[in-house]
Amino acid sequence: MMRGDYGWWTTIGTRWADCDAYGQVNNVIYYSWFDTGVTRMLYERGVLGDGASAIGLGLESACQFQAPVEFPGDVEVGVAIGRLGTKSARYEVGVFPPGHEEPAATRHVTHVCVDRATRRPAATEPCHRDALADLIRAEITPGDTR
Amino acid sequence: MMRGDYGWWTTIGTRWADCDAYGQVNNVIYYSWFDTGVTRMLYERGVLGDGASAIGLGLESACQFQAPVEFPGDVEVGVAIGRLGTKSARYEVGVFPPGHEEPAATRHVTHVCVDRATRRPAATEPCHRDALADLIRAEITPGDTR
Amino acid sequence: MMRGDYGWWTTIGTRWADCDAYGQVNNVIYYSWFDTGVTRMLYERGVLGDGASAIGLGLESACQFQAPVEFPGDVEVGVAIGRLGTKSARYEVGVFPPGHEEPAATRHVTHVCVDRATRRPAATEPCHRDALADLIRAEITPGDTR
Amino acid sequence: MMRGDYGWWTTIGTRWADCDAYGQVNNVIYYSWFDTGVTRMLYERGVLGDGASAIGLGLESACQFQAPVEFPGDVEVGVAIGRLGTKSARYEVGVFPPGHEEPAATRHVTHVCVDRATRRPAATEPCHRDALADLIRAEITPGDTR
Repeated sequence: MMRGDYGWWTTIGTRWADCDAYGQVNNVIYYSWFDTGVTRMLYERGVLGDGASAIGLGLESACQFQAPVEFPGDVEVGVAIGRLGTKSARYEVGVFPPGHEEPAATRHVTHVCVDRATRRPAATEPCHRDALADLIRAEITPGDTR
Repeated sequence: MMRGDYGWWTTIGTRWADCDAYGQVNNVIYYSWFDTGVTRMLYERGVLGDGASAIGLGLESACQFQAPVEFPGDVEVGVAIGRLGTKSARYEVGVFPPGHEEPAATRHVTHVCVDRATRRPAATEPCHRDALADLIRAEITPGDTR
Repeated sequence: MMRGDYGWWTTIGTRWADCDAYGQVNNVIYYSWFDTGVTRMLYERGVLGDGASAIGLGLESACQFQAPVEFPGDVEVGVAIGRLGTKSARYEVGVFPPGHEEPAATRHVTHVCVDRATRRPAATEPCHRDALADLIRAEITPGDTR
Repeated sequence: MMRGDYGWWTTIGTRWADCDAYGQVNNVIYYSWFDTGVTRMLYERGVLGDGASAIGLGLESACQFQAPVEFPGDVEVGVAIGRLGTKSARYEVGVFPPGHEEPAATRHVTHVCVDRATRRPAATEPCHRDALADLIRAEITPGDTR
């Protein structure tokens, strides 16, 4: 996926402690950026926040690392929704150096929707589907109950 | 404070991502170790845990760094209670390389006791004073209402 | 992969700051644990360390999350080498709650071998193959030059 | 110290994993922000960077926490130099919620200047004194050789 495939963007600044002994941002930090991109978007769209009864927990994830990132500087993080099912969502996230067409890293992560209090599976809410509609890349098909 | 001044001990392993671009554990991580020492102790003594209605929030803290720590390896973390008041507690924490008399870093941190739900000031509980008695280094004096 | 599939083990303690607002260890921290498992093993086997001229940089990774982990407590981290090529290595890592047969999370990560100074591709060293032999699950086949 | 006392500013965004089980940014993260403020400033002023032969290592630090910070959102970080000696520097850092006069937290940290390669004490360079002059709050007095 390239820049144009991500519909929502945020900028994240690198921190000094993000670097590891190899002098570049540690791969673990990228995962914090991916999550921050997705959760900032979900807060902005009203899916997460004070009144939210359901939350998403990570189920599976895959990532490709393409270029190192160094301190100081920012990264631009793009978010798309690969699939919004009835019980889960797949997010696509790309981390780009400012002005670069090629990402430093890309990831997808599947979140399963659970009730915040009980941690039992919950359904994604129709109002959230509306709030996220412009970011969704694939429609669910009849009979797909994930 | 030296080793003998700390009454409760735990061991913490270094992690790869703890290191910064200078190739040693970043100072920020020491604060995570200090907090982990205090909270592990509070869980073990029954002060924190599922039923806890009050929690401690950091108010002020000071730290001295004396020697670098590298990955891989463990540190030994000693905890004492400098003062357990009616509304706050002062913890003393030392991080020691295994077998060393001299600490790599020492810290004190003052926690104010607040209600977990309302975040309003709360009193430290008498049962907790009993649970922590052997670790307390200074008694509170009459009229000291901190 | 189950417990028996991992040939090298280390124990990692949870830290207070590992938890996120959902009250359980944040998924990002698991990646720190995976990396810590692999790098502790590589130090112990002499592949990484002061004299190492080559290092491994993450290329791609995938992870499944199966159960939450809470503070305080330890996790047991098992490491295997899925494939040790001439220029890259695939590590398999499992995070297990103590005494559990089922992992809390599993991951594979592919590291590409680069020269520490130049960051140009480097070859994995034969002596390292010997040092890691008991952990390797799949032999490379003739013509596989990854 | 209030806003007007800090001469150099940067903005740092909160990250999802910054929050702890109490639902607010963990105190440890503030230390990462303090360091990020100081190091971003030192890079911008040319004191740190590719050619730097000397680096600063933390010696002692003290911090006051005044208000919680939550995700999502930014903090504004102000930096001043309390004292720039011949062998060490004392930095003052304040973390402010956007638009607030009162800080969420303040810290001072003393860095000792060491040679990057040998980690032996080094002198602060006159050119750095010039580069930082507008941020220095206290002049060193004759005979002060710290």
